[in-house]
Amino acid sequence: MKRVANFNAGPAALPLEALERGQREFVAFEGTGMSLLEHSHREPSYEKVHREAIGLLREYLSIPDTHDVLFMQGGARMQFAFVPLNLLQPGKSADYVVTGTWAKQAYEEATLVSKPYGSSARVVVSTEKDKKFTRVPETSEMSFDAEASYVHITSNNTLFGSQWASYPETGNVPLVADMTSDFGSRKVDWSKIALAYAGAQKNIGPAGVTVVVGRKDLIQAGRTDIPQIFRYKGYADSESLLNTPPVFAIYMLRNTVRALLDWGGLEVIEAECKAKAALLYGLCDSLSDFYRAPVETKSRSTVNVVFQLPSEELDKKFLSEAKAAGLVGLKGHRSVGGLRASIYTAVRMPSVQLLAEFMRTFAAANR
Amino acid sequence: MKRVANFNAGPAALPLEALERGQREFVAFEGTGMSLLEHSHREPSYEKVHREAIGLLREYLSIPDTHDVLFMQGGARMQFAFVPLNLLQPGKSADYVVTGTWAKQAYEEATLVSKPYGSSARVVVSTEKDKKFTRVPETSEMSFDAEASYVHITSNNTLFGSQWASYPETGNVPLVADMTSDFGSRKVDWSKIALAYAGAQKNIGPAGVTVVVGRKDLIQAGRTDIPQIFRYKGYADSESLLNTPPVFAIYMLRNTVRALLDWGGLEVIEAECKAKAALLYGLCDSLSDFYRAPVETKSRSTVNVVFQLPSEELDKKFLSEAKAAGLVGLKGHRSVGGLRASIYTAVRMPSVQLLAEFMRTFAAANR
Repeated sequence: MKRVANFNAGPAALPLEALERGQREFVAFEGTGMSLLEHSHREPSYEKVHREAIGLLREYLSIPDTHDVLFMQGGARMQFAFVPLNLLQPGKSADYVVTGTWAKQAYEEATLVSKPYGSSARVVVSTEKDKKFTRVPETSEMSFDAEASYVHITSNNTLFGSQWASYPETGNVPLVADMTSDFGSRKVDWSKIALAYAGAQKNIGPAGVTVVVGRKDLIQAGRTDIPQIFRYKGYADSESLLNTPPVFAIYMLRNTVRALLDWGGLEVIEAECKAKAALLYGLCDSLSDFYRAPVETKSRSTVNVVFQLPSEELDKKFLSEAKAAGLVGLKGHRSVGGLRASIYTAVRMPSVQLLAEFMRTFAAANR
Repeated sequence: MKRVANFNAGPAALPLEALERGQREFVAFEGTGMSLLEHSHREPSYEKVHREAIGLLREYLSIPDTHDVLFMQGGARMQFAFVPLNLLQPGKSADYVVTGTWAKQAYEEATLVSKPYGSSARVVVSTEKDKKFTRVPETSEMSFDAEASYVHITSNNTLFGSQWASYPETGNVPLVADMTSDFGSRKVDWSKIALAYAGAQKNIGPAGVTVVVGRKDLIQAGRTDIPQIFRYKGYADSESLLNTPPVFAIYMLRNTVRALLDWGGLEVIEAECKAKAALLYGLCDSLSDFYRAPVETKSRSTVNVVFQLPSEELDKKFLSEAKAAGLVGLKGHRSVGGLRASIYTAVRMPSVQLLAEFMRTFAAANR
């Protein structure tokens, strides 16, 4: 069967070669007489996959030796709790910039986590207006606490489609970023990032593994009055083999990052994401009487293009005709409505061109 | 290539039909034009898999409506923290029966978790003697705190190979069990179990998903002063779709439990586990000048058969010749040494007969 053009917001499209390799090796892995799913995580054949996954991520994202690369579980939402548990020192405060639903939840979890330890979380600024987040804040709106344990931002807002073009300056206060929806789609200046985390299921792999990239000194200085299994240090010291890792998700992440490197690496992927986004936003702007892209121009996401049609009836018609044309996953998040095209790393330009062509035709027929 | 006889302690052997189905459907899932790994977890095609996995587990293990079935992440070790976070009420205490390394860690995590909330954990009894755990305790050794929030046990000790033949009576105090290594291999009287948890990667699926089965009233009454993502209630109320679940691990769990049901269901599987264990222990006992099974007879595990040879040199020779004969995963845990045959649900009797035959021949040649 023909593969669809997949605009799912996550789990999302994966490189076909990563999937085909997964299928080929699925039952019998590399002459071991068993599936990788049946391997002990302490066997050299699995350890090789595990280390390759870390190595390829380092190569792809130019992650320096100053930072550890950890594989964890539970998604970004688990990190909403693990970040303050590890990094928010008793009696201190952490600063949160609230630019979307997940940023808000990260702040709320930090509040719950900090209470019994006498620490706290603070909202620096929120761009929520009438329950919509259509921009990231201006520098002038943010006044950080110089004594904060860290500043937390959400690099890309998956639901509303806004993104930080560049990260705020936080001086000596460590900058922590939830990069779930754009990790792997853009270059990162690691000298400015103390800790980043991302569920893999958008740009770099399947659901079931969360990547944490953090400064070694910060991880080593993490709190030790929290459960061992919550401590970044335990994952760092064991190369993420503290307990049984999500073996197959890590294997598929490796296959995915391998494919992204084979396609030309991050420079090519980032340029393609920008070009895909420019095509769709350009189309919306040129047909602005029909397609409305509500996010402020300079805050527009290069991976989640959110747009609206004149009516909910047209939304439904759009989704149904798009599906018939082999374009799926275009429904906006249930809390936002409208439409959304997630154009992550593995959604190549030809798929986006198909969508743009469909949008032109649909507008002509329905405006 | 011929499949090996796989005695890995976990991740471990899976039913061949579960793997073959996984392979067949891997790139294009059920006419959707994409892999299941690329599906949104909110799509009906995935939700069907998700609900089937829950339904098949309920059917296979006869889990009544009084209990919820949750899918979580992070393995049993994450549950070491989540259990006290959810169930250990502020100011109260929890009782731990320490019968192995993981039971001890569960107690230690509970101690760390409880401190900031003014609660505590208590060791009822430990069967650790000279760093070895070779038995579960007698009833007479256990005096439970009638005011405890719960009593925690480890149903099967993976490392040392001991198992509770029947669970202790705890009166009105809820009994919580880490069932990671025997969940799915034996019947459970759910009227006696308040909450059980298990990493799937031993008897019922791959690594990457943790099953929690808990009484609904207990889950609903769980603490609300902890992060949302730690609360059992959140998973229960959302049918474990609180955030992105580990989609593919749940799919493979479904395939695995489907196969176990097709093989005859839990009655057949439990009888087979007992017969496999009896074969190996019987052989050790009949050749007791060569093979020593250190676990006390009535505490012997039906899924992890631990045994020792007269010398470490013979251990190495055994492992190397066994591997050449297509028998893998027989090395004891690095903290215990010796040998261990993990004979979980998907390790069928013919594989265990091959191992027994090998052990007879090896003893004859080396005693």
